[in-house]
Amino acid sequence: MMDSVEKYLADILATIRPLPARELALADALGAVLAADVTAGHPLPPFDNSAMDGYAVLAADVAAATGEQPVVLPVRGEIAAGDTGRYSLVPGSVLKIMTGAAIPAGADAVVPVEFTDSGAAQVAIRQPVDPGNAVRLTGGDAQPGDVLLTAGTRLGAVHLGLLAAAGHGTVLARPRPRVTVISTGDELVEPGSGLVPGQIWESNATMLAAAAREAGCPARRYPIVRDTASAVLAAVQDALDGADLLITSGGVSMGGEHDVVKAALATLGTVGFRKVAMQPGMPQGFGTVGPASTPIFTLPGNPVSAYVSFCLFVRPALDALQDSYRERGKPSQAVLAGPARSPAAKRSYLRGILDDAAGLVTPVSGQASHQLASLARANALIIVPEQVTSLAGGETVDVLELP
Amino acid sequence: MMDSVEKYLADILATIRPLPARELALADALGAVLAADVTAGHPLPPFDNSAMDGYAVLAADVAAATGEQPVVLPVRGEIAAGDTGRYSLVPGSVLKIMTGAAIPAGADAVVPVEFTDSGAAQVAIRQPVDPGNAVRLTGGDAQPGDVLLTAGTRLGAVHLGLLAAAGHGTVLARPRPRVTVISTGDELVEPGSGLVPGQIWESNATMLAAAAREAGCPARRYPIVRDTASAVLAAVQDALDGADLLITSGGVSMGGEHDVVKAALATLGTVGFRKVAMQPGMPQGFGTVGPASTPIFTLPGNPVSAYVSFCLFVRPALDALQDSYRERGKPSQAVLAGPARSPAAKRSYLRGILDDAAGLVTPVSGQASHQLASLARANALIIVPEQVTSLAGGETVDVLELP
Repeated sequence: MMDSVEKYLADILATIRPLPARELALADALGAVLAADVTAGHPLPPFDNSAMDGYAVLAADVAAATGEQPVVLPVRGEIAAGDTGRYSLVPGSVLKIMTGAAIPAGADAVVPVEFTDSGAAQVAIRQPVDPGNAVRLTGGDAQPGDVLLTAGTRLGAVHLGLLAAAGHGTVLARPRPRVTVISTGDELVEPGSGLVPGQIWESNATMLAAAAREAGCPARRYPIVRDTASAVLAAVQDALDGADLLITSGGVSMGGEHDVVKAALATLGTVGFRKVAMQPGMPQGFGTVGPASTPIFTLPGNPVSAYVSFCLFVRPALDALQDSYRERGKPSQAVLAGPARSPAAKRSYLRGILDDAAGLVTPVSGQASHQLASLARANALIIVPEQVTSLAGGETVDVLELP
Repeated sequence: MMDSVEKYLADILATIRPLPARELALADALGAVLAADVTAGHPLPPFDNSAMDGYAVLAADVAAATGEQPVVLPVRGEIAAGDTGRYSLVPGSVLKIMTGAAIPAGADAVVPVEFTDSGAAQVAIRQPVDPGNAVRLTGGDAQPGDVLLTAGTRLGAVHLGLLAAAGHGTVLARPRPRVTVISTGDELVEPGSGLVPGQIWESNATMLAAAAREAGCPARRYPIVRDTASAVLAAVQDALDGADLLITSGGVSMGGEHDVVKAALATLGTVGFRKVAMQPGMPQGFGTVGPASTPIFTLPGNPVSAYVSFCLFVRPALDALQDSYRERGKPSQAVLAGPARSPAAKRSYLRGILDDAAGLVTPVSGQASHQLASLARANALIIVPEQVTSLAGGETVDVLELP
């Protein structure tokens, strides 16, 4: 009996425990997920300050200023941004003030330098200003106690800027999971090396580590592991260090003695192997290993199967490790440009080229699960339901866009 | 006279020269842009191989097999994946074969293990197969000389997998530009440290470096630089090492002697300062510095101005450095949920909360350019054209979604 895609994903999500939240430096927190609300501890801005370069004044002192009859006032000093002195305005005078500098006591407005003759000892002001002009008030962006960011926020650049502006050097958040990908197989050779017949170049670990990075996660590729259960076991145990999620690729087909990943994991952790009613990607394995119950996916060795499995199962698991899983948007719909076939009782994910503007999706030629070049030409997966075995051109289908 | 947003961007793009293409290791090439077509040097797959675990046969030998009258044949050996021996099938016998193993000479099909009794010395085959069954043919994914990926492709996970599968250990591509962000100001203090009145926590470099990373680029934040032209000049010259694009923030207002970034760059490079007819973000500076003509943006110090400028000008420049600039999709449209105001003769980018499903966008409260908390609440920018100074609720507006 095969599991449905939904049943399998639900079991994965029920197994995963979110990573513990940690205090992360802001430079390390892009893409981390806030574990608690962040409230302002100070007003933002922290003090009244000037929005422009100009002159701090009492607005009443310049109320009569015109181009013909400027108000001329003595300049009693200058306040630069970052000047921590305490200044007071003497009525009937001005203080020169720079953008961001603290408004002196007694001033209630800033006259922009453009309204003046830029005088140094005295200044001719040609235009009046309202009280409050060009003054950024203390707390005008946020008051102490205001919730700046809510728990569950995935931290983007602006959030990090706001945390910095509010004085936070670190933030309590769940980091992006670190992913290690292990590829197994005696037939595998490093890309860039020579081949003899019977061998192929390793591609899955390269692809899956990059897919994890595309999903925002730090990811690395473990050196190629040979086809013995003991080598796989040693690699998995070694890779546990520094990984929050492990992926293996290969060694899980249905043939028995060469399924070294199955054999290795039988002695370690909780990995269960099962068939999922999908194509490509039927043979799946998932569980946890090691002292931290690190999730491990044993993906099929066929590259297209491995990639589709990554999109459907590993990506949601990465979100769940940050306690940030939410169902992604429903598939969009498009009209099939040509016929398509699908095995009975399995949901197919066919590679297609989606023309969004035209609302058309064309299945690519080469739908076998080893055909990676055809996946590279595709930009979408066409979903064919379990009970459908053939579709004609012109029918409407669900499509998932690829990253 | 102010420049339009379009004129300013066009001048930037006309100035930037793409980074030279380099041979990048696949592990470093995610997001890099291919500088030349990649063609297959070998067939993919490189040899006929089995798509399943089973038995290599001559299809004619098992044509009569049924459940009641299995065809029983001797098993003359086994071929594992990665086995580089050269095998030949003796007609009237079979060879056990694993997924990915080379098809022996003389065989024309694979009987899946599920159709058999899994015999070791001899096997009972209960079902016939067509010639070619479960055989992946040499070159079935790509033939030598086929274009696998075209110049200009931005390399994603699947592309990297395909390059690996085709045997490429490196790829000739333009890497993601490395960005360094320099924040200047005597008022700036490291987040996490204490403040006295007159000081604020540095946030722009944190935010802009994260924005560059959100755009896929390696980015770092330079230590806070004090308000002297010589300090800024030294920082820019130091930061040139290891950066493909520099950003400064602050030190470019209209007041004169404190505009240290302007003063520093007057002696170095080609940076021009100008006013762009937009709000926030009017004072802009762009040019090149150093022996590699490294692009440098001198962004305004107000955080919202700096961020909007990053989105409108720096992001396209990052794409142009990879020779991969293309105009991003047109803004979408939404109905304004409440009134909005905009200065005359400037294009406004107002912060808004876009409800995509409802097609409604609501301006957030707090539109001044220092109000970062309101930017963190927004998910879109509402574009108000130059000639429009006020909009009523219910009008249709252009919106740009934020990352």
